[in-house]
Amino acid sequence: MTQKASKLVIVTEKVLLKKVAKIIDEVGATGYTVVAAGGKGSRGVRSSGQPTVGDIYTNVKFEVLTPSRDMAVKIADEVAAQFFKDYSGITYICDVMEVLYAHQF
Amino acid sequence: MTQKASKLVIVTEKVLLKKVAKIIDEVGATGYTVVAAGGKGSRGVRSSGQPTVGDIYTNVKFEVLTPSRDMAVKIADEVAAQFFKDYSGITYICDVMEVLYAHQF
Amino acid sequence: MTQKASKLVIVTEKVLLKKVAKIIDEVGATGYTVVAAGGKGSRGVRSSGQPTVGDIYTNVKFEVLTPSRDMAVKIADEVAAQFFKDYSGITYICDVMEVLYAHQF
Repeated sequence: MTQKASKLVIVTEKVLLKKVAKIIDEVGATGYTVVAAGGKGSRGVRSSGQPTVGDIYTNVKFEVLTPSRDMAVKIADEVAAQFFKDYSGITYICDVMEVLYAHQF
Repeated sequence: MTQKASKLVIVTEKVLLKKVAKIIDEVGATGYTVVAAGGKGSRGVRSSGQPTVGDIYTNVKFEVLTPSRDMAVKIADEVAAQFFKDYSGITYICDVMEVLYAHQF
Repeated sequence: MTQKASKLVIVTEKVLLKKVAKIIDEVGATGYTVVAAGGKGSRGVRSSGQPTVGDIYTNVKFEVLTPSRDMAVKIADEVAAQFFKDYSGITYICDVMEVLYAHQF
């Protein structure tokens, strides 16, 4: 069942976890992975705190595989429009992923 | 020591951590990285629980750099054959990675 | 504000978190994301311990988006030169990322 896919990555503040997940669902992606993340943005330390020393990961990083680039862009547009005026965040895309197997994803 | 590599990503349930690591070893990859992950699959919330709110990451995400695409596919085939009938999981591949330096990896 | 970017990935031991972050800053990247990671390298289990079972992630994985491949290589060169003789680590690069939105990154 190999198929080309786009991978959309969204890194933003943890407080937005549920809201971003809701957008991903609503646009129609079949699943996503999320990991706890720390980091630093271009205007200094993120609102979520200083660069983390291991236990304090106050950002989240979503990875969403989508069948089309259009769907990835649509999710990113919505997330940016709703949240990036008030919260730190970045979205980027990689178009060269190839899905080998997926079960319940 | 720049060299082209494939990156295989495997996201699955945490209970399979050691078993997937064993397959990666046996197929011959020289190392891997694993992070705790949450998420949601296409048939609703994963067996590992609802979309996580930060501290409960009950999936794992492996990243394996392999010198050839064949090795990546072989690992994915084995993982899918052994586990994806009974557990949630996805595997995907990216062929455009370039390794710059590796020490003990 | 779509723009091409390189993504540099650095996986290394957690003890180097602040030092690697400092190099990323000094070379001029505008931000980075870091996650806790476990794993195994080519010479057996990393100095940071055995393959982790979920809670013990003693490595860190940096992801840095840079506007040019040159900046990514410069960061990787510096990190490898300073640390990879004494610590486990790997750096790799992906040149096909496309940044859609960034706020405070």
